[in-house]
Amino acid sequence: MSGSTFGKIFRITTWGESHGPGIGVVIDGCPAGICLSEQDIQDFLDRRKPGQSKYTTKRNEADSVEILSGVFEGKTTGTPISLLVRNQDHRSKDYGNIADLFRPGHADYPYTVKYGIRDYRGGGRSSGRETIGRVAAGAIASLMLRELGITVRAYTKAIGPHKVPDNDIHYDHIDQNSLYMPNNDVAEKAGAYISSLMSECDSCGGIIECLADGLPAGLGEPVFDKLDALLAQAVVSIGAVKGVEIGDGFAVSESLGSLNNDPFFSENGVISKKTNHSGGTLGGLSDGSRLIIRAAVKPTSSIARPQQTVTVSGENTEITVKGRHDPVIVPRAVVVVESMTALTLADLVLQNISSNMENIKKFYR
Amino acid sequence: MSGSTFGKIFRITTWGESHGPGIGVVIDGCPAGICLSEQDIQDFLDRRKPGQSKYTTKRNEADSVEILSGVFEGKTTGTPISLLVRNQDHRSKDYGNIADLFRPGHADYPYTVKYGIRDYRGGGRSSGRETIGRVAAGAIASLMLRELGITVRAYTKAIGPHKVPDNDIHYDHIDQNSLYMPNNDVAEKAGAYISSLMSECDSCGGIIECLADGLPAGLGEPVFDKLDALLAQAVVSIGAVKGVEIGDGFAVSESLGSLNNDPFFSENGVISKKTNHSGGTLGGLSDGSRLIIRAAVKPTSSIARPQQTVTVSGENTEITVKGRHDPVIVPRAVVVVESMTALTLADLVLQNISSNMENIKKFYR
Amino acid sequence: MSGSTFGKIFRITTWGESHGPGIGVVIDGCPAGICLSEQDIQDFLDRRKPGQSKYTTKRNEADSVEILSGVFEGKTTGTPISLLVRNQDHRSKDYGNIADLFRPGHADYPYTVKYGIRDYRGGGRSSGRETIGRVAAGAIASLMLRELGITVRAYTKAIGPHKVPDNDIHYDHIDQNSLYMPNNDVAEKAGAYISSLMSECDSCGGIIECLADGLPAGLGEPVFDKLDALLAQAVVSIGAVKGVEIGDGFAVSESLGSLNNDPFFSENGVISKKTNHSGGTLGGLSDGSRLIIRAAVKPTSSIARPQQTVTVSGENTEITVKGRHDPVIVPRAVVVVESMTALTLADLVLQNISSNMENIKKFYR
Amino acid sequence: MSGSTFGKIFRITTWGESHGPGIGVVIDGCPAGICLSEQDIQDFLDRRKPGQSKYTTKRNEADSVEILSGVFEGKTTGTPISLLVRNQDHRSKDYGNIADLFRPGHADYPYTVKYGIRDYRGGGRSSGRETIGRVAAGAIASLMLRELGITVRAYTKAIGPHKVPDNDIHYDHIDQNSLYMPNNDVAEKAGAYISSLMSECDSCGGIIECLADGLPAGLGEPVFDKLDALLAQAVVSIGAVKGVEIGDGFAVSESLGSLNNDPFFSENGVISKKTNHSGGTLGGLSDGSRLIIRAAVKPTSSIARPQQTVTVSGENTEITVKGRHDPVIVPRAVVVVESMTALTLADLVLQNISSNMENIKKFYR
Repeated sequence: MSGSTFGKIFRITTWGESHGPGIGVVIDGCPAGICLSEQDIQDFLDRRKPGQSKYTTKRNEADSVEILSGVFEGKTTGTPISLLVRNQDHRSKDYGNIADLFRPGHADYPYTVKYGIRDYRGGGRSSGRETIGRVAAGAIASLMLRELGITVRAYTKAIGPHKVPDNDIHYDHIDQNSLYMPNNDVAEKAGAYISSLMSECDSCGGIIECLADGLPAGLGEPVFDKLDALLAQAVVSIGAVKGVEIGDGFAVSESLGSLNNDPFFSENGVISKKTNHSGGTLGGLSDGSRLIIRAAVKPTSSIARPQQTVTVSGENTEITVKGRHDPVIVPRAVVVVESMTALTLADLVLQNISSNMENIKKFYR
Repeated sequence: MSGSTFGKIFRITTWGESHGPGIGVVIDGCPAGICLSEQDIQDFLDRRKPGQSKYTTKRNEADSVEILSGVFEGKTTGTPISLLVRNQDHRSKDYGNIADLFRPGHADYPYTVKYGIRDYRGGGRSSGRETIGRVAAGAIASLMLRELGITVRAYTKAIGPHKVPDNDIHYDHIDQNSLYMPNNDVAEKAGAYISSLMSECDSCGGIIECLADGLPAGLGEPVFDKLDALLAQAVVSIGAVKGVEIGDGFAVSESLGSLNNDPFFSENGVISKKTNHSGGTLGGLSDGSRLIIRAAVKPTSSIARPQQTVTVSGENTEITVKGRHDPVIVPRAVVVVESMTALTLADLVLQNISSNMENIKKFYR
Repeated sequence: MSGSTFGKIFRITTWGESHGPGIGVVIDGCPAGICLSEQDIQDFLDRRKPGQSKYTTKRNEADSVEILSGVFEGKTTGTPISLLVRNQDHRSKDYGNIADLFRPGHADYPYTVKYGIRDYRGGGRSSGRETIGRVAAGAIASLMLRELGITVRAYTKAIGPHKVPDNDIHYDHIDQNSLYMPNNDVAEKAGAYISSLMSECDSCGGIIECLADGLPAGLGEPVFDKLDALLAQAVVSIGAVKGVEIGDGFAVSESLGSLNNDPFFSENGVISKKTNHSGGTLGGLSDGSRLIIRAAVKPTSSIARPQQTVTVSGENTEITVKGRHDPVIVPRAVVVVESMTALTLADLVLQNISSNMENIKKFYR
Repeated sequence: MSGSTFGKIFRITTWGESHGPGIGVVIDGCPAGICLSEQDIQDFLDRRKPGQSKYTTKRNEADSVEILSGVFEGKTTGTPISLLVRNQDHRSKDYGNIADLFRPGHADYPYTVKYGIRDYRGGGRSSGRETIGRVAAGAIASLMLRELGITVRAYTKAIGPHKVPDNDIHYDHIDQNSLYMPNNDVAEKAGAYISSLMSECDSCGGIIECLADGLPAGLGEPVFDKLDALLAQAVVSIGAVKGVEIGDGFAVSESLGSLNNDPFFSENGVISKKTNHSGGTLGGLSDGSRLIIRAAVKPTSSIARPQQTVTVSGENTEITVKGRHDPVIVPRAVVVVESMTALTLADLVLQNISSNMENIKKFYR
């Protein structure tokens, strides 16, 4: 079944394996008339590109994007936008030894059961490089949202136990440290933590937070395509994400109705909420306040330590994963979470237009 | 945009408002040949029915289901199954006073912005009664799964701060207390907690856990329709759910690769995992071990205390929500989470069949 | 696989068997704010209701529709609209003799192979009564289109060899004869033709033509969801339709480019075409001129003559189809073709809105 | 709205403009384990490639395909297959003069209204080159079908008035003449006819017929996704197709039930039909006999004669279309019709598997 497509109107289809000729995405349903250059997309891809700091894989990829269709004289034309990133520095021989083994924490085993065949080189389709298509498409979604006054930004909320306190967030720090944390001090400690894990051939996880501002109320489609429900799918579909929260998230389970409800108030004709425990959604629709989501990211599964596993023919054995791996994928996944959020919002922004007849009439008259 | 449909092959479309003539669901894509009676569905509906304990709304609904199509001589025929539950005890007059107000924590405000019109009676489409369609369909999905040896069960993991410890779970207790908790002692304390909140006109939330056993490896469709991603959408689409976790969930953010990876081992030709931190998924596909998901449920938004809000015309005011409301919706939402899990699995079980050519050939020869 | 759903935004799901409790449809994605009563829908259903003339089945069905959801105080609310028509006069015993036989021209044989079980009573799901859902939904689509100045109307172009000439069409005649022909003289001859076939226990087919006026240019979504492509699916999905044409249709195969191209011209700032060989579409998009489609309808398969066939266990035998059948289904299918056209257009009208950014900006500001 | 995707399980998304960097397609949902090489696809593309006879455009394109993903060691892996064909011989300057004009018979006008922007070079997305993606994907669908014993073949049934009689079809002739006609004598006359039109700067149309053999009964999904309905969409979505027929097609409108019904008979335990007026479908499902469809193709719209038209700013003018155009597109469209048929069948073959529980159980046990 075709699971490589996301969205109903603003709709992307990604493809590509880690060590195949390339990775790409087709965006269908992007409205015509948006200014778009390869550089706009490259800026996003550069944020997830490997080799940017000592905390990321040494695989050396330019990840240069080529626009193959859908743009004419610098503007989108409303037809499908096809984007291609060629793979370059793939050392498939690093992976020869895993052809016959199932790596713990990886998709090797269920892929083999499901498909009967597996491109084991670099994880094939289940590699983190799969997210290139998401990010390239997310760049375009973000451009579209920006034209409507909507901005999306994500950052690293925590690396292992090193968490940025809610009351000590500095957005200007985000691009000042290689971990994309909104607090340089915490980032420094987190960096030291990662370094120590690297020396032990171990890895860690963390939490990514994503905010969207400028959203009109009413985005999301009841019942199953609610804004928060689609965001949950979008974010959990990113490899290594094991949990997602909206607003106060799991903390609501210990709150009270009298505390958790956000009171409405009106000022100068504008309706707002006094608090935002809900994280920007009510009944699954955007409520006009800031959208807040968090994703829990597991520790990188590829570690250069011996681990117990089995061969494809079912014999017990040990594996030590070689190759060039990130000790923590959180920093590079920040832009992926941001992209998936932007894609979800872009699609719902377009879906929302046909909600009521008054607006449709204006469009056609 | 049509958001009332869930699933690609095993596909449901729900409809209905709290105070309209009825609530229902159409299930299309259910395989032919499954034994199905109205009682099979009623058993599920009775688990979410109001009025079953002192902790639930006093609204008195039989919630009797009628099968309108798709079943012939006690078996499904492969054609759409239409199910209808008539609303009976709707006291719309209780809601007259909210026609002009936005209830905090509810969907009233964004619905009004989105649609320009709102069926305010009992929350209309955004009422908890909307889940009747999910549960009725979930009953059929569960029947189908059972024929394949797959079982799904959910229970209340926590009510407010009263949590059942992982090492003290008693499945046989689940149906012995009205909170559907797998520990009667915790349930008793949780019951006292709820009672005290009721006397204060307040409400609380909790956590629902859901397990699925008997899953073959390989369920889920990369990249966006991964098993965990669709479960996340399914569960977060339930009103009041603010977070979802798979396996160790948010705890992975503080774990290490060396601890979090589940080692494989082989015994008598069967491949298994020594631990199950992943909660039954690898790379977004089922890995053959138990599936574990958790949902965080917020406190009931309707509380009989004065809250600050605004009128539809934008004036600041106060509201005290009348009507008959649950002080905590967790117990009644247990079967909803179980149903959404079953629906997700049923769909992916069918999608999975066409994954590889060897199996397809067997089917056609 | 779920094949009972049509449309992407304005999306319908039909259900129901000929001799089950009822027939119905859920319309999801209908914009809020459209005035809608049961009578609006009943008017459409009455046009396909049996028993209206001597040329139709004697089955006596009121086909009364009940709105179960999605309408509040006389207006659509943007939530799913569920419609129910109860079956009343089903004489299932008439069908006892076909339980073990495959009726020639009917779906009995492939249904049995596909599903392994078949509701043989009155054809079950493959009965013509299945179209009730389409027509009920088509009524709502037509209402929506009318608010945008778009009108759709269908009529009988031919019954057997009795064809209304292109240059002798009288729209005012359509409702003056029971065959819905735009020419009373041809209708009279066609009526005599049908009567003679009835006395011979035989049946005939015909051609239905459908026109849509008031369409803006640009409706349809390249490449696969072109206006004409989706209309073709919509119309051929109606039982008994064996062909579909747009504009000059099959005649274009013998035309020349110099004759078939419709020249553009401009008058008072309005761009139009001098001719309309294309039938209102260019490149699969509406071109602003009248939409013209035609459907070829086969003779009713149920005839009260002995026919050769086989039993479900594979023995050669003879069958004489009993029951109450139309000698020609064309007149009753007219409103079905009209409904499917309206549904296709309604969906594409909504899809079209998000085509370009300038319009989207207007909506959000 | 995203209209560049076709199919539900075997699902393709095409992209690309006539004069952009390239054209391509992503196939998602193709089962794993099918042997696939670039040559397999190239063989199909070569049948639609320009410059193969004096009756086709002189545009010189190798149309070489590159497989970018989804194939490993010569076999499909179940992940998306991305195919790329670079454009080479695009002389965009030929099209400079149409930037400001609407070509009669082309999509220029409605594209401009819809999107506000138009890649006028070679027709952009609405060029015939768009079909490259369909044919490349169709090659893979055909390979898959062949593994199940299903074969699809199309040919030119008529060029203008030169029609191959039903009783004089020679399949071995199809590849012996450049018009892909199953009768060399008719092909010769048709060739002379085309030559005479070329000398008059005119163009003609024709009819393509497509057959599929080896189909099991039961393919197709009631109600809207019937085999014939989806074939109708598939075929009419090809530019220039103005009509489609299944089996006897429009002729059924003048037939009788007693003649048009195909009697069943049984021989050696196999159920068959004595005739095949239905063209291989009953109730919209395959009935086990040969599938027969026909498409009416209009004369090429681009003709080197002066035609009346308007400028984008609405002034009346004349246009003479330059560039390199086919006097008839029928021969090159043969493989496109065959591909769309194969794609439709491949998808329905996969959808059909989940129709009944007995088969599903076999798969999982």
